[in-house]
Amino acid sequence: VTPDNNGPVITLTTDFGYGSPYVAAMKGVILSINPAARILDLSHAIPPQALRHAAFFLASAVPYFPPQAIHAVVVDPGVGTDRALLYVETGQHRLLVPDNGCWTELLHISGGEPLVHQITESRYWRATVSSTFHGRDILAPVAAHLSRGLDPRALGSRASKWVRLDLPRPWRGEDGLHGEVIFVDHFGNLITNIGGETLDAVSASPQLEIGDVVVKRWVRTYGEAPAGALVALVSSAGQVEIALAQGNAARELGAKIGTPVRLAGGHPGQ
Amino acid sequence: VTPDNNGPVITLTTDFGYGSPYVAAMKGVILSINPAARILDLSHAIPPQALRHAAFFLASAVPYFPPQAIHAVVVDPGVGTDRALLYVETGQHRLLVPDNGCWTELLHISGGEPLVHQITESRYWRATVSSTFHGRDILAPVAAHLSRGLDPRALGSRASKWVRLDLPRPWRGEDGLHGEVIFVDHFGNLITNIGGETLDAVSASPQLEIGDVVVKRWVRTYGEAPAGALVALVSSAGQVEIALAQGNAARELGAKIGTPVRLAGGHPGQ
Amino acid sequence: VTPDNNGPVITLTTDFGYGSPYVAAMKGVILSINPAARILDLSHAIPPQALRHAAFFLASAVPYFPPQAIHAVVVDPGVGTDRALLYVETGQHRLLVPDNGCWTELLHISGGEPLVHQITESRYWRATVSSTFHGRDILAPVAAHLSRGLDPRALGSRASKWVRLDLPRPWRGEDGLHGEVIFVDHFGNLITNIGGETLDAVSASPQLEIGDVVVKRWVRTYGEAPAGALVALVSSAGQVEIALAQGNAARELGAKIGTPVRLAGGHPGQ
Repeated sequence: VTPDNNGPVITLTTDFGYGSPYVAAMKGVILSINPAARILDLSHAIPPQALRHAAFFLASAVPYFPPQAIHAVVVDPGVGTDRALLYVETGQHRLLVPDNGCWTELLHISGGEPLVHQITESRYWRATVSSTFHGRDILAPVAAHLSRGLDPRALGSRASKWVRLDLPRPWRGEDGLHGEVIFVDHFGNLITNIGGETLDAVSASPQLEIGDVVVKRWVRTYGEAPAGALVALVSSAGQVEIALAQGNAARELGAKIGTPVRLAGGHPGQ
Repeated sequence: VTPDNNGPVITLTTDFGYGSPYVAAMKGVILSINPAARILDLSHAIPPQALRHAAFFLASAVPYFPPQAIHAVVVDPGVGTDRALLYVETGQHRLLVPDNGCWTELLHISGGEPLVHQITESRYWRATVSSTFHGRDILAPVAAHLSRGLDPRALGSRASKWVRLDLPRPWRGEDGLHGEVIFVDHFGNLITNIGGETLDAVSASPQLEIGDVVVKRWVRTYGEAPAGALVALVSSAGQVEIALAQGNAARELGAKIGTPVRLAGGHPGQ
Repeated sequence: VTPDNNGPVITLTTDFGYGSPYVAAMKGVILSINPAARILDLSHAIPPQALRHAAFFLASAVPYFPPQAIHAVVVDPGVGTDRALLYVETGQHRLLVPDNGCWTELLHISGGEPLVHQITESRYWRATVSSTFHGRDILAPVAAHLSRGLDPRALGSRASKWVRLDLPRPWRGEDGLHGEVIFVDHFGNLITNIGGETLDAVSASPQLEIGDVVVKRWVRTYGEAPAGALVALVSSAGQVEIALAQGNAARELGAKIGTPVRLAGGHPGQ
């Protein structure tokens, strides 16, 4: 049933939005170089220049893809400056990214040593390169050439250093485990950086606080709580999450990426 | 010109939005199981948990697809509770849906008896199933296996009962035909549940009311009216629709799904 | 590496938004006629009936595609009126458009004489044609038939006239070069109709004004300026652009399509 010769997959993740022609231009460039490429939209609604959003997004999406896919990522506040562009292999996944740390969390998850090459060999770029649109002029053509079988070592020399985002890790204080919101999803659910496995060692139901609000109810899934109830649960990515049943917790609580949370009572070490 | 061996089509309809990584994760899971699958986005902008919106959407989109496509639908307020997941065949169309009635209107249109199977055979799921993301962990892998030729009877036992949405049907009163808005499209056009064929039997131009407002002008298409005119017409789905020429009727009238309308004067039976 | 028999590419550009079922219906119609078609979303977030937005969008996206792609465009305020539908070949690109001038800027860029055919031969349409949805009932099936190799001359007779948008061109006054904003992108960057090549002939740094505001700083790319700085640069499409570093210039300045700009001082002829 499954044909042997599927076109290679190139995914696109950008902060370009849906009304601007930038994504479309990238798709055109890719197909002009490799007409067989299968282009998949991951998201073009990464908030503008939001590297932490992008970092969480990639870590939650890329691991589910088969290794041969090529993931082009254009969240690039430094476009046209001297920031590098990178080819990255981590955990068998292949990415093309600006060197701004957007793949930090993915690397953290994948573990191991990544293979990283600078993208400096301009023969694989468009002939003219705009200072403000390396997605179209460098990353799209490079993705297309890779999808045709180009050896990534041809892109530029191997890199041993790259930018890492300083992503917050939870820390234990006298009054509990301190973390923060690291992602707000489309439903307004608040995903924190506190791992769900923290809860396994807890005998009593721990108390979760966000700002002045105590989240008292722990559930396994949203539908266990009545509409309007604020609940805590373990997210589909395995992290402690705060949700408002049939509502929007982010709006209700005025919470966003960076809002502190505290897990107190009954957790290991207290 | 048309190759014989096209990859099978899997469509995705969700309320996940465009900035969250959930859609991307589903695409990755599908391609990991069937690299030949051709994934098509139908919509990820179904409003959160909006089953009536989803019901209208599916009824207006799925019938245009060829029968072999597999439509995975994740508008799922009951995720992780004991609500079932279903494989559905209706009118030659194949869907994977939570058992929450989102396919009620499609069934109504298709007519006939559907083939419905519960999705209970976990060998076709991801090894670990999150309580909050059955789209990624159950529906995506099941869609991928079906696209490789899996017999749907292998998914679970046949079901003879399922949830139906209580979609409003128009009713005739002494003062006319009473209906309501069942969909508000991106332009702010208000689609009602009154069928356009109702108008065929009308000699004089009937009067359409929404709230206190009388829609006086009937047109065949938007461009027949001057900018700013409130008009009634038969929608592309064959139903009575209210539109504001070159404007947004929903915003202008404060109307939404459920807003009552009344068709009075000259209709059959009066 | 590249298979010879890729499915033909059909791209979709509409103002339908992402929550309405209209795009999905078009995809279904296309696949029902040509199961091998590869459908690519360019944008469904063209603002409703915004022809100037669509014109800029197409001119910035279509030129990057390989010639064999078919671009179906549905930004169609005149749907169902006597406006024509057109098959267009310009600069090797193939489009299906309402005759409302949405391809004016693309034609301007492509140069040369376009090949234009009216779409009047109903045998390539859906059997029933709604007055309000020619995208689904005419353009989608025509795109699918073309992708199967249909000769475009079969669609209808050759046209020698078509609607052109009256797109503003910059003009030189005593006080400088007068232009206007012709596109606002997702970042709030303001793209003007003043070509970047204008600057090449300038010895001193020219002064750019938008409303009462003088944009003093010229940069090569956004990252050269500190956050919050208002800057001028040459856009990725080669035109003078106004941006707010790490911010949204459109919101900050209250600017939109049509907002006048003036380039004064040091430009050629002064």
